Order: sequence, then C-alpha cells, then structure tokens
Amino acid sequence: MKVQIIGVGLIGGSFALDIKSAFSEAEIYGCDANSEHLTKAKALGFIDHQAELENVQQVDVVILAVPVDVAPGVLEKVLDLVNENTLVFDAGSTKEGICKTVTNHPGRRNYLAAHPIAGTEFSGPEAAISNLYRNKTNIICEVEKTAFKLQERALEIFQRLGMRIRYMDPKSHDKHIAYVSHLSHISSFMLGKTVLEKEKNERDIFDLAGSGFASTVRLAKSSPEMWTPIFQQNKENVLETLNEYIANLNRFKDLIEDDDFQGVYREMQRTNHIKSILNGID
Amino acid sequence: MKVQIIGVGLIGGSFALDIKSAFSEAEIYGCDANSEHLTKAKALGFIDHQAELENVQQVDVVILAVPVDVAPGVLEKVLDLVNENTLVFDAGSTKEGICKTVTNHPGRRNYLAAHPIAGTEFSGPEAAISNLYRNKTNIICEVEKTAFKLQERALEIFQRLGMRIRYMDPKSHDKHIAYVSHLSHISSFMLGKTVLEKEKNERDIFDLAGSGFASTVRLAKSSPEMWTPIFQQNKENVLETLNEYIANLNRFKDLIEDDDFQGVYREMQRTNHIKSILNGID
Repeated sequence: MKVQIIGVGLIGGSFALDIKSAFSEAEIYGCDANSEHLTKAKALGFIDHQAELENVQQVDVVILAVPVDVAPGVLEKVLDLVNENTLVFDAGSTKEGICKTVTNHPGRRNYLAAHPIAGTEFSGPEAAISNLYRNKTNIICEVEKTAFKLQERALEIFQRLGMRIRYMDPKSHDKHIAYVSHLSHISSFMLGKTVLEKEKNERDIFDLAGSGFASTVRLAKSSPEMWTPIFQQNKENVLETLNEYIANLNRFKDLIEDDDFQGVYREMQRTNHIKSILNGID
Repeated sequence: MKVQIIGVGLIGGSFALDIKSAFSEAEIYGCDANSEHLTKAKALGFIDHQAELENVQQVDVVILAVPVDVAPGVLEKVLDLVNENTLVFDAGSTKEGICKTVTNHPGRRNYLAAHPIAGTEFSGPEAAISNLYRNKTNIICEVEKTAFKLQERALEIFQRLGMRIRYMDPKSHDKHIAYVSHLSHISSFMLGKTVLEKEKNERDIFDLAGSGFASTVRLAKSSPEMWTPIFQQNKENVLETLNEYIANLNRFKDLIEDDDFQGVYREMQRTNHIKSILNGID
C-alpha cells in the first residue's frame, strides 16, 4: 500500500507512524509546502520518500493534513490528479467548507471527509507521535458520497489505528465541534492572555501556578497557524458559542457582585455532573 | 510527633498519608464535622484515631484543612486551646481574611498561614493521595508572626513532603492566586455549563470531545462546597480577573466578527509564549 501524506506535521506524521506499524507493507510518501519539515520527516523516518504533490497519481491512499484554509484548494488539485482507485481523506477541524468546495468535482467519490478528534498542543514533524489516534473518535461526513470500496479501505485503516467512527453531516459537525473543541481553545488562549498581561514578572506565574491552571491553559500553546483559519471557516458557530460563554461568565460575575453565593453554588453544582460525562476521555 | 488533622478530605487526608510515611513515629488524630468522612478516613487507614476538636491540646501539630468560610472560626477555637509548643497551620486558598481574624489573638504565634498549591478536582477522604505535595509550591504568609521554633518545625514537615516554599504577604497572595487559580476554575465551570446547556444529548459530548476539551473543563468537576466560599472571600480580586477575562474574550470576538483574522492570529501568537513559562508544571 502506497500512502502519500500531504503536510507532515503532528497530524500527518502521526498517521504515517501508525500506518507504518499497522501495515507492514506500507510505503510512505510525504510532501509539504515547507521543505525543512519534509527533510525533518525523512530524517525522523516516518516518511520513506520525499515527493511532489503530483506523485499522488502513483499511490493508493492520500492523507490531507494541512491547515483548513489551504485544504480545499489542495484537495481539488489532488482530485484532479488521482485515478479512480485512490482513496483521499482529510483530517481537518471544519467540514462544511471543504465538502462544499468539492461537491461537484468529478473526483468527489475518491474523497472521504474525516475529522479525527485527536491532537496535542504541539505542532510540526517533531510533534508526531505513535498511537495518537488510538481510542479516539473519528467523525466522517457525507459518507454516502464516497465510493464504497474506498470507504471500506478507509475504515480498515481507521480500525487498525484503533479509532471509533461516528457519522455526521458537515453542518452538524461544525456546530458541535465549535462547542467541544473550538470554544475551549479560545477560553484557554484568553485565560493565558489575561494572566500574562497581569503578571508581568513571569517567574511569579510559574511559582504560583498549579496543575489546575496548567491544565486549563494547556490549549493556549496551540499553533496560531492552524487555529486562525479554523475560527475563520467556522466563524458563525464560533461566535455563537462565544456569545453564550461570555453571557454565562457575565451571569456568574453578577451573582458574585450581588453576593448571591447560593446562586454561585448552584451554578457550580449543576455543572458538576460533567464528571460522569467526561469519565474516560481524559 | 502527634498530628491532628481537622478536615479529613483531599487536602487533610493527603497530608496525613505523607506525614505518616515521612515521619515513622507520627501518630495521626483526625476530626471532621462529617462523621461519615471520619469513619472512612479511619477505615482507609490514614488516621490512627478519631478525635474531637478539643484533642488539639494533646498534639504537636494541628493541620486545618476545612473550607475557607469555616476556617477562621475553627482556627480561633484551636488557638484558644493549644499550648505554646503546638504548631498550627492551614492550607486554605485565601489568606487575607484568616490572617486578619487572628491578628490580635494571644495564640497568633502558634499559627503559620500556608497555602500549598496542590489538589485535584476530587474531594472527600477517598480523594486523598500520596505525594500530592511533592514538587508543589507552598505559599507562606506573614511568616514573621509565627514563633521561630514553630516555623522551623513547619519547614521540616514541608521539606520532607517535598514542597518548595515561597513567602508572600496575604494581600498579594489573594491577588495573584485569583489569576492563577480562582479565575481558571470559573472559566472551566462556565465552559462546562455552556457546552452542557447546548448539547442536551450528553452522549454527543462524550463522543466528540477530545483530550483538549477534557483538560480545559477538568476543574469544572471541583467541589462547590470548597469553591463557593473561596469566591466569596476573594470577591474583589476575583471580580477584577473576571472583568479582564471577559474583556479579552469580547475583544477576541470582535476581531472574529470584523473578519480581522490577522488580529486573531496575533492574539494567539502573543499568548503562545506561555509554553516556556508552563514547562515543568503540567
């Protein structure tokens, strides 16, 4: 099985690592707009060959792992090039835009729209790790638009990598994911910003911060290159979640201001049952 | 060394566990307003004896680990009872109020105001764990008001438990800790609330949420019993941090609304260097 990874960073590189260990005969081609990343990926050993985009004509599987602003354009080019037996899937955090872009493309049946809910706050080829996708959810959109035999090949890969599959339409995907992923990145970035602005002497933060703070601002380490286009593409949903989040914070602030600490207690108690929901994902 | 733990939950229980292993001769007395917790602490084995508050007259060290709204009153009672050779320290997340309460107490020199920056999102005796305090910061306030030989005993305990010491006045403590601890609890609780309100079908949250979301809402599992009085006691500082946090969120929202994605990028990039500051605490 010949696999071409477009974008050899955290997401693409981690796919390469797991596919190499799950499919002994896999041969991995990598291409990247950043030639240093490509050299690094080859040196790290998770790609076997440095390639050009055009090489997708020679492979069985293409994995698109580039920022969501360039992904639709690259996907169109790839679909122009590949033959009918090549599976192409992406891993982007927004799905409505990319699905719309290729909806009338003659190669639409080569493409499977995917979003593995997996990642870390790090980026680039050095961030690639084994088993990133194990026990993670992979959301597949518009599955009916992908050729049956290519669906089958994709599911075989996802299964061997240990992923759980969920099917969803692109619009619902973008709405739900704004709540459970995009909003928490903004809350984390702004928490980091608020504390950094206040605490000019950075040693003080380090000394006083505990694991709770570290956990809450962990996502503020994420890559702006990756996240800016996500917020741009999912603008309406992200704004909706932000409005609700800010309204909830304002209500909580009002309760404190009004010395309504029974109300403060109730707010926290009602949210506490998130315990039972989160069991198993952290 | 006889030690009495007042409040045998996560904080008190974890002290008991570590003191038992660091001081082979230590004998641990426990008391608690909740008799079930006391029975459980005895059954779990981290206290040797169930005791009444009055037993503090017989011990060398008293550790006060109760919610911050009841701590000042209990501390006054304890200082009324103990003899001059007994060290009393607390572990509360606010320091200005409790220090003020006992400032003129004849037993003030028995008391050391402490705040170990350690904990988990769990509570109660079953939440007690070994090594909770290892490599954690312990903030000591108004150290000059504690008898020298009792400071020495406290530092010996903190050192054997592996804690780093920082000295600070109570006012600065409450201000800094509002940023690096109290605010992140509110941001987490309100994030949890926003998502729970939206996603009525809870399975959907579980299925789509990744480790990033779990990390960001982890603190929303915390105990409302513990946190309500903290927000009450630190009201002014907490409101200040909340105002700044909400203002930052509104600015970020405006940038998205105005399609200023260069601005969005810059906001995240500037906060990114929190990476280097956080290294080592998560």
